[in-house]
Amino acid sequence: MNPHDLPTTPGWTLARRAERMNPSVIREILKVTEQPGIISFAGGLPSPATFPVEAFRTACDKVLRDDGTAALQYAASEGYAPLREAVAAMLPWPVDPAQILITTGSQQGLDLVAKVLIDSGSRVLVETPTYLGALQAFAPMEPSVEGVASDEEGVDPADLAARAPGARFAYLLPNFQNPTGRTMTESRRQAVVEAAAAAGLPLVEDNPYGDLWFDAAPPPPLTARRPDASIYLGSFSKILAPGLRLGFIVAPPAVAPKLLQAKQAADLHTPGFNQRVVAEVLRDGFLARHVPTIRARYKAQRDAMLAALTREMAGLGVHWNQPEGGMFLWLRLPPGLTAARLFPAALERHVAFVPGAPFYAGTPDERTLRLSFVTVPPEQIDAGIAALAAATRQLVEAG
Amino acid sequence: MNPHDLPTTPGWTLARRAERMNPSVIREILKVTEQPGIISFAGGLPSPATFPVEAFRTACDKVLRDDGTAALQYAASEGYAPLREAVAAMLPWPVDPAQILITTGSQQGLDLVAKVLIDSGSRVLVETPTYLGALQAFAPMEPSVEGVASDEEGVDPADLAARAPGARFAYLLPNFQNPTGRTMTESRRQAVVEAAAAAGLPLVEDNPYGDLWFDAAPPPPLTARRPDASIYLGSFSKILAPGLRLGFIVAPPAVAPKLLQAKQAADLHTPGFNQRVVAEVLRDGFLARHVPTIRARYKAQRDAMLAALTREMAGLGVHWNQPEGGMFLWLRLPPGLTAARLFPAALERHVAFVPGAPFYAGTPDERTLRLSFVTVPPEQIDAGIAALAAATRQLVEAG
Repeated sequence: MNPHDLPTTPGWTLARRAERMNPSVIREILKVTEQPGIISFAGGLPSPATFPVEAFRTACDKVLRDDGTAALQYAASEGYAPLREAVAAMLPWPVDPAQILITTGSQQGLDLVAKVLIDSGSRVLVETPTYLGALQAFAPMEPSVEGVASDEEGVDPADLAARAPGARFAYLLPNFQNPTGRTMTESRRQAVVEAAAAAGLPLVEDNPYGDLWFDAAPPPPLTARRPDASIYLGSFSKILAPGLRLGFIVAPPAVAPKLLQAKQAADLHTPGFNQRVVAEVLRDGFLARHVPTIRARYKAQRDAMLAALTREMAGLGVHWNQPEGGMFLWLRLPPGLTAARLFPAALERHVAFVPGAPFYAGTPDERTLRLSFVTVPPEQIDAGIAALAAATRQLVEAG
Repeated sequence: MNPHDLPTTPGWTLARRAERMNPSVIREILKVTEQPGIISFAGGLPSPATFPVEAFRTACDKVLRDDGTAALQYAASEGYAPLREAVAAMLPWPVDPAQILITTGSQQGLDLVAKVLIDSGSRVLVETPTYLGALQAFAPMEPSVEGVASDEEGVDPADLAARAPGARFAYLLPNFQNPTGRTMTESRRQAVVEAAAAAGLPLVEDNPYGDLWFDAAPPPPLTARRPDASIYLGSFSKILAPGLRLGFIVAPPAVAPKLLQAKQAADLHTPGFNQRVVAEVLRDGFLARHVPTIRARYKAQRDAMLAALTREMAGLGVHWNQPEGGMFLWLRLPPGLTAARLFPAALERHVAFVPGAPFYAGTPDERTLRLSFVTVPPEQIDAGIAALAAATRQLVEAG
């Protein structure tokens, strides 16, 4: 047989889970909104003005000069020991560095958690709404995901308790949540932890934004209150830079060995070079000087957006929250107007956002949308919110 | 309820697949063999003398100086376009850069392939023996893995054809295979591709070592002969450095979108900084100057090991092959002596290797073992093989 005669039917059979994999709605929206001339509040991108480029240049040079071959060789799956120690020292409760697993971004933490804890059909509880990337990370393991009733303080403890029996875990983002920007109060945290403990429900706590507080640090993490029954996910993406893909998991002994084995199988280890560079940047208290500058910048941008909303949206029946940190603000349109209808009208006026619907595990609130206040500079925030209000007014008045 | 009264039973339920996850036998062995004073042929580590540290220093500095914020920002899941173009240009058959997905090492390629193609119980065909890391990457998706009868040229086409019906894919490493170092001849490649095509069996071709040939380049890849029915995995770990964790997948349209969606969910994207640094290093034909120096070094080390084996193992009934490239040599002990028995005796003489058994999907050949000839310098090769021969002689004479 000649290769030219080979049959043309390749014979691929996809795994059942592939049906659950879909292009991210947000990534598809970003392709539209990244066109030049669009003021985009859609992305979840940190402000590039906060990236400590010079600190990275110095650190890269030092790591390659002093320790180049070790930095470029294969490395331990657990992560670079000095970075694990630095992470443990950053956390606001006592953590043994041996409990820390360095991950390729905290998105990989979600992938590993899903592999280790989710069987086909396993029930997983999430906030209403919740981080879309978590829904995508969990989906390949074919869970049954349920949204827990939630308000401006996070999940409702009573509904959490009611849904807990048989669930594998609840996935919670207590600080400046993506997408809503909301924060769990101290009393809600206590109630949630007590409800979960009473039901024997493990928690997976995701905290990428916790350091980005504006006026006061948020209450201590859920994991600090119940460490043996919690997995904690952290990230350097919002306090240093996302392009190095560095996150971490803090896991209790009941699950840590399996998370490590899943990590080995997934990518052997997170780039050792990146880990050494960040460990070098972190020396001498760099974050204590750097993170306050991000907080100040983001707070000013939040204030600019709140002021613009108050000014431009008056009388339209639009509601929004006042996030105490993070990157996002959550907006609700008046009855009769959906974010899906507003999206093209806003785009015609060169402004973009992300509709809220994809963030819901169950029935979405079609009137919600997410605005990032960190990506575009303040003067564009004013122009963008004015355009968004004009598009809203047009549709409200059209009825 | 006070937090101190919280129940102590955490309530974790692990996914069924977690039972399939186990610590890598090799990683456990490496912990023993990395003690000071041990001559270790056990690891699969490239020689650090081949890492182009200065080229990386220059490239890191240039990327951060010219393009720092873009390099540190979130990026596309597909990978950095200039790197995808550079990869396409490196490959010995026509590939559209749009078919290329940059991965966090080629180990991640195996993880994504497993997610997209393996259901619980799916039959997957592998060589006998095969790469242990692939078995580990596939295991969480709960396949039924079958070893295809293999000889010094790779898999037997007749056995491949017999096992093909219903199998999801065959995973093959045609060049300087890990663990055996063997290479598929041109005639065997043709026979394997024809057998797979006749049976409608997709192929997953893994080629981390193909550029490390000693006297002549290996025959063209399987994928070049049947691109619509093959996934090809490549890596920069052995031609530049493993510590940056950069690999790639070349995938046909039938599976590429699902691999991309699995990639998004797994870690959003491979570090953009690393991708830009490697794209910068690759400019101006760097590999054409650099890779020949690796080939020359590894060939000299293979020759040193072959000479030492011929000198030291005479009369012991030990057999080994003569790899035409790559990093590994495969050795078979005389009847009655297993690698597991030899291992502690060798370690007493301060030399280490990896027993062959973990590399078998089915019944292992307990008399086999893998030796890396690239990690330790030539003078240590002589001393290490002499010690290994002494340990072997002791056990052979003891009967």
